[in-house]
Amino acid sequence: MIFLNGQFCLPEAAAIHPADRGFLLGDGIFETLRVNHGQVRHLTEHWRRFTMSAAYLEIPVPFTQQDLTIIIRQLLEKNSLSDEAVVRLTLTRGAGPRGLGLPMTANPTWMAAAFPFTPPPQTVSAWVVGIRRNELSPLAQIKSLNYLENILARREAVKAGADEAILLNSKHHVAEAAAANIFLVTAQGQLTTPPLADGALPGVTRQTVINLAAGLHLDVAEKSITVDDLDNAAEVFLTNSLITIQPVISINNNPIHNRKIGPITLKLQAAALAAG
Amino acid sequence: MIFLNGQFCLPEAAAIHPADRGFLLGDGIFETLRVNHGQVRHLTEHWRRFTMSAAYLEIPVPFTQQDLTIIIRQLLEKNSLSDEAVVRLTLTRGAGPRGLGLPMTANPTWMAAAFPFTPPPQTVSAWVVGIRRNELSPLAQIKSLNYLENILARREAVKAGADEAILLNSKHHVAEAAAANIFLVTAQGQLTTPPLADGALPGVTRQTVINLAAGLHLDVAEKSITVDDLDNAAEVFLTNSLITIQPVISINNNPIHNRKIGPITLKLQAAALAAG
Repeated sequence: MIFLNGQFCLPEAAAIHPADRGFLLGDGIFETLRVNHGQVRHLTEHWRRFTMSAAYLEIPVPFTQQDLTIIIRQLLEKNSLSDEAVVRLTLTRGAGPRGLGLPMTANPTWMAAAFPFTPPPQTVSAWVVGIRRNELSPLAQIKSLNYLENILARREAVKAGADEAILLNSKHHVAEAAAANIFLVTAQGQLTTPPLADGALPGVTRQTVINLAAGLHLDVAEKSITVDDLDNAAEVFLTNSLITIQPVISINNNPIHNRKIGPITLKLQAAALAAG
Repeated sequence: MIFLNGQFCLPEAAAIHPADRGFLLGDGIFETLRVNHGQVRHLTEHWRRFTMSAAYLEIPVPFTQQDLTIIIRQLLEKNSLSDEAVVRLTLTRGAGPRGLGLPMTANPTWMAAAFPFTPPPQTVSAWVVGIRRNELSPLAQIKSLNYLENILARREAVKAGADEAILLNSKHHVAEAAAANIFLVTAQGQLTTPPLADGALPGVTRQTVINLAAGLHLDVAEKSITVDDLDNAAEVFLTNSLITIQPVISINNNPIHNRKIGPITLKLQAAALAAG
């Protein structure tokens, strides 16, 4: 069962209108939420990014955070996924007349769908791909439905035999992975992650890790990362709501920390687990 | 009536699957076709771009050019739009499992919808917007469903009181308009348009105009255009399949050619009309 525009229905019976601007033009946003021990993790932070993105795009959000909480609980029940799950929330500008112009009155489409949570691989290999992230675009700060570049980046990495892609921006600085933020520990022991201005999506887990690192009195900085920095990194890991902190054990076939999980990564994983 | 996945149906009865990757991730492409005197204009050129884009994205095209011709004819008949119309063709990778990874077997969604043709305004005003086109992305060469940047560019132009947006690329060169290619005539009388490498979509009408200009022995060149070039242009016009050649009479409120249609623009409009 999914939730679509105010009611629960079977996916086969659910109908996205063929004039939906999400379908025709990618005119919408989404969030991917992790349900852990029956609780949505960091719902408030996701809600904040979601509503800020919607406000920027001028798409009305036809529900409150409280509505969402109730709907997710019902959605999980109906799908017998009350303990561990993934929820995807999608909002589009809805159906409208042909063309790019904004409709006079938006009639947004919104959808929530639940999926079983599959524990991610403990470690991954990464590949620096040719596709560039446009850090100059306002979309770099929004989890929009325009995900084709990320799809192509992932495809390029997979074709090279790796699990995940690392995207550089127009200045050849590291921006993020195809579906995650990236952190590295320098040879000097500093934990660094690209600033938002370099094209990093403002990830909820990214911010959580920065906060955890500060709490652990680690030397942590948001600063530009070059490909050389990646080559010389002591540790590298990825973050998102589903993988939390996922160690990268090689980049372009060059092993990182002898393909083992480094001490700072382990410390942060333990802290994240303890924080819940 | 629209055509969706092999059958004609009413839009209200048509159902895009809620797991369609076109809807969730913008994972697909489209074409906008002009029907003029009952004929689809430049169908072969649109078909070529469409199939090349699909091949790049590895989305199978489950129909031939001949199938499409027949379907469009039926679609126009069913909508009583046999003479003048707009047809939008959409192809997505279809429904798939959650996430960015490509499904093992694609089950593409394809749709054709017809709309009445509204004659475009004879002239338009344009605005150079802050949103940058990423000329480094392979998507710059593909008419993909990732149109949110163009939507935001258009919104920015409209908020500034103009009709259409002009987007620069990461090098601050002119790339294109939100929904059209751009040409200008320099003070020296040279017709210029941004090269594809600057982020211009390979527009069917763009190429037609280049060919027409060559046929008229006009001095025509694909070369980078700066904002200064725009400021100093003798004439500026936009091209796409619906507007064909649309004069721009002001950019950021600065009049072009005294807000009148320039002689080279008029000559090309006449040639385009004669070519049909």
